[in-house]
Amino acid sequence: MINFEALSTISYGLFLVCSGDENKGNGYVANTVFQVTAEPAKFAICCNKDNYTCDIIQEKAYFSVSVLHQNTAAEIYGNFGYRTGKDFNKLDGLDIKYGISGVPIVLNDSVAYLECKVVQQVDVGTHILFIGELMGAQLLDEGNEPITYAYYREIKKGLAPKNAPTYIDKSKLDSTEKPKKASIYKCVVCGHIYDDNIEDIPFRDLPDDWVCPICGAEKEDFNKI
Amino acid sequence: MINFEALSTISYGLFLVCSGDENKGNGYVANTVFQVTAEPAKFAICCNKDNYTCDIIQEKAYFSVSVLHQNTAAEIYGNFGYRTGKDFNKLDGLDIKYGISGVPIVLNDSVAYLECKVVQQVDVGTHILFIGELMGAQLLDEGNEPITYAYYREIKKGLAPKNAPTYIDKSKLDSTEKPKKASIYKCVVCGHIYDDNIEDIPFRDLPDDWVCPICGAEKEDFNKI
Repeated sequence: MINFEALSTISYGLFLVCSGDENKGNGYVANTVFQVTAEPAKFAICCNKDNYTCDIIQEKAYFSVSVLHQNTAAEIYGNFGYRTGKDFNKLDGLDIKYGISGVPIVLNDSVAYLECKVVQQVDVGTHILFIGELMGAQLLDEGNEPITYAYYREIKKGLAPKNAPTYIDKSKLDSTEKPKKASIYKCVVCGHIYDDNIEDIPFRDLPDDWVCPICGAEKEDFNKI
Repeated sequence: MINFEALSTISYGLFLVCSGDENKGNGYVANTVFQVTAEPAKFAICCNKDNYTCDIIQEKAYFSVSVLHQNTAAEIYGNFGYRTGKDFNKLDGLDIKYGISGVPIVLNDSVAYLECKVVQQVDVGTHILFIGELMGAQLLDEGNEPITYAYYREIKKGLAPKNAPTYIDKSKLDSTEKPKKASIYKCVVCGHIYDDNIEDIPFRDLPDDWVCPICGAEKEDFNKI
């Protein structure tokens, strides 16, 4: 028997994985970035085939990883996690460094970055695992802690986008509790749920300048569901 | 340029990955366990080819994952992380459940477990990535938090064993600091370093019943290096 809630005990960080070059770059929010060998240092990332960045990594064979910190701006999650780069440039206005390979590296809100050359790719179904050999790595902002997925969920109240390997269809969750009679609101931009049952402040009492903690959308962008 | 310290900003959990059956079982401490697809739910684990468990997973094509918590006993790390199961039974005396596939699942000191059937394996050099489809998952001890690798390093002062994908050869670390004149001690069992330069209490002032925070070895099992 599978209790899907057990899956949320697996620890992850949160990262921006980017690829491309000076003319065209794109990236997405990833939770699956992990070292697979020490000699030589190689990293695996797991990317949904529907992500625009997936096409770019396949074309360029390089990727960068920015390790996001706990105070990462909501707009970073909104732009990189919930919008596609097919129709706008996600890197516009950000502090970008170009790596040895020419790959763009986002320096904003990150404690460190890695740059990798793809040496293997593995089709695992809906996603591709890219294995990259480490070409460069630097520490950036040592005043902040790397954000974990648990912190993002519990403190930032963030949800996994549908393309994430860890997306949970809530209908699968074990629950014998009856729904409580309180209101639930959903962000039309990113799908973030504000549930009066679990929040300290009812949605209607939030100040007018309150914004979605995930994507930065305004209060009026939430619909009651 | 590669600053190897940047690699320690990547977040991981800590897990026991086990395989085998009722007659013969074994496991190791892993930090690389991560979900790679949601539909169907599949997990990747990364296992050193020198690990005895690697042979058993290849033979049985099933593995279990126990998600360790913050209060995991030092002996668990010592037995599963620093000793080989070739000459003793690591599962002896532990609370073991056998999964649907017959694979042993360690229930001690774990907040949840997963059971997976291997559907792909990928040679990435020194390690093999096993991709497993989820067959079972349960929550266990909800009173404890899953341990992260950062917590293990910073709070428990743990080090990566040489077989870990994240093992760091300390000679590679960037350091312009001159060594300080204080003593450094090494555990003969697991290699854990107690460095008076960074600890609050000098080694010689530790109580006699102090034990290695990683493997549970006694104070007298430390040598000055």
